[in-house]
Amino acid sequence: LARIALDAMGGDHAPAAAVTGALLALRDFGGSDTIQLVGRGDVIRAEVDRQLATDFARLKSEAKRIEIVHAPDVIEMTDKPSVAIRGKKHSSMVVGLRLQPEGLSDAFVSAGNTGAQMAGSTFILKLHEGLTRPAIGTMFPTMRDHLVVLDSGANVDCSAEELVQFARLGSVYAEDILGRKKPSVGLLSIGEEAEKGNAVVKAANALLRKARSEGINFQGNVEGRDLPIGASERGPIDVVVCDGFVGNVILKFYEAVAPMIFGVLSRHGVTQQQLSEALEDFDYATVGGAPLLGVRGVSIIAHGKSSPEAIKNALKVAARCVESRMSDHIGQRLAQSAAKHQGAA
Amino acid sequence: LARIALDAMGGDHAPAAAVTGALLALRDFGGSDTIQLVGRGDVIRAEVDRQLATDFARLKSEAKRIEIVHAPDVIEMTDKPSVAIRGKKHSSMVVGLRLQPEGLSDAFVSAGNTGAQMAGSTFILKLHEGLTRPAIGTMFPTMRDHLVVLDSGANVDCSAEELVQFARLGSVYAEDILGRKKPSVGLLSIGEEAEKGNAVVKAANALLRKARSEGINFQGNVEGRDLPIGASERGPIDVVVCDGFVGNVILKFYEAVAPMIFGVLSRHGVTQQQLSEALEDFDYATVGGAPLLGVRGVSIIAHGKSSPEAIKNALKVAARCVESRMSDHIGQRLAQSAAKHQGAA
Repeated sequence: LARIALDAMGGDHAPAAAVTGALLALRDFGGSDTIQLVGRGDVIRAEVDRQLATDFARLKSEAKRIEIVHAPDVIEMTDKPSVAIRGKKHSSMVVGLRLQPEGLSDAFVSAGNTGAQMAGSTFILKLHEGLTRPAIGTMFPTMRDHLVVLDSGANVDCSAEELVQFARLGSVYAEDILGRKKPSVGLLSIGEEAEKGNAVVKAANALLRKARSEGINFQGNVEGRDLPIGASERGPIDVVVCDGFVGNVILKFYEAVAPMIFGVLSRHGVTQQQLSEALEDFDYATVGGAPLLGVRGVSIIAHGKSSPEAIKNALKVAARCVESRMSDHIGQRLAQSAAKHQGAA
Repeated sequence: LARIALDAMGGDHAPAAAVTGALLALRDFGGSDTIQLVGRGDVIRAEVDRQLATDFARLKSEAKRIEIVHAPDVIEMTDKPSVAIRGKKHSSMVVGLRLQPEGLSDAFVSAGNTGAQMAGSTFILKLHEGLTRPAIGTMFPTMRDHLVVLDSGANVDCSAEELVQFARLGSVYAEDILGRKKPSVGLLSIGEEAEKGNAVVKAANALLRKARSEGINFQGNVEGRDLPIGASERGPIDVVVCDGFVGNVILKFYEAVAPMIFGVLSRHGVTQQQLSEALEDFDYATVGGAPLLGVRGVSIIAHGKSSPEAIKNALKVAARCVESRMSDHIGQRLAQSAAKHQGAA
């Protein structure tokens, strides 16, 4: 039974995509979950009514589980994140996030300004003990199954200790959301051997080997080639840890490379039907949203270009985070790690 | 008229792939270029004779332009690079590289231990003035055409100034080998804006903007998504500058992602014929070898798994580097940059 706040004003196709995404998600949820559309009340109300009168008349009963939370202001894509969060107290982003500490909501989803969502989530939801930063965990389609790459953009210059924090966050995520038992963690580097990598990665390798004693299933270094395969020579990989610079470059590269290869193939006469079927495996809309890991609550980052389908899937990710109680598990995991290290010291 | 030394003992399929690659290259060259096969004389001689007696009888006249340079020792893939270069003076790697300062050869190609080739090239050929490190320049297939990514593995922790050095090296490479006029240079980052990126990248962006005055056609930051496209919103990209950690991760990821997508497609019933035609665009064998840029001479790094076809193409890259006098142009370019900066100071 999750109450999910959705930023109705964020993203390139707001508010229409948000409203459609909410209706589709409520149909799929089927239960008694509710969605709180946060933004300009009159605009959202008009859009909901319009969609119920036209394309989605069949979803009238689902619409009853939509609640509108008025927020008159909007954080623009071009706004400076921390300035916007401090200055625009009545924006859909700030109002939507504040519902959680007020006990009125369980999760927040936005396709708006990602930097502002990160700053706002950290500021309003706060971080779990034992963390210096939150991380964005992104699903990567692989030959085997999805794996989680983190950080994929929140933090560009990371310390070795922060990479270990990402390993803890990613392990809980893979367990709670992907259902992996003892998820295996790989450290992204340029060679399998522990001594390969840049200075931070080499130090992180040593720390991660120690962290096996606290239950991190550290597999060792993994390489770029292991990502599309979803496994290294040592076995399947569930979580890949890297700093946000590398993670973001790889993520954006991946998003662009599949369409490029399909373009090449269609020049070679492969049919549109075959391509669009295959493309589903690579469509980021099927994944929908990436949770900002480490905050005390649920904050799901959706792509600015999100379609209604992508918004729907982001809402589903939010519901899964709430139902699995992932944020609590992260807090417990971090407390255990801290206790372990205090015991050892 | 190039004399190209080929490490006959390096790579997973040595010496057979080296001998076949040399014969195929000589057939394609057609001119009076010669290839020096460096390694155990008796082993190489026996392999050349075997191939001429069986599969390549038709290439007997080409074989006259093969010279065997004896080197009794071999640097193994597992040897520590700098130790091996100092300790194994009679290895095919050291002997093959030494031919250049001795005036006996114009280029060196190896599919052997990459670290040793980098250390040996730096130590034996020396660096051009104005450089602190050499860089590996790798060709990336894109939707538009190939672009050069550097560094793609030689240097993991780079300063901003070193990234500018890579821009100078890559510009000459793109001009001499890819034939681009005033090649456009992009700095790999996580956003187009100059203020996006990690600390080193932000500093490099400022330095590269200044370097426009010395003729670097700096386009600004580029993102992961621009790589497969071969262009950013500002226009085509010929050279992408990044540190060797990111470059290596991206390169290995790219090598693995195309086969993975083709695997998905063949599950969707795309024919083998269509796939193998399309695959040619992504086959690293068609590129063959990556030059180590910045050394005073020509040193081409081939993949350890190189097939004869890949070796042949690496030899062609070597010939193109020699004929275009790329190394001299790099020296001139760096001298001009230094003069410009002294003039400004």
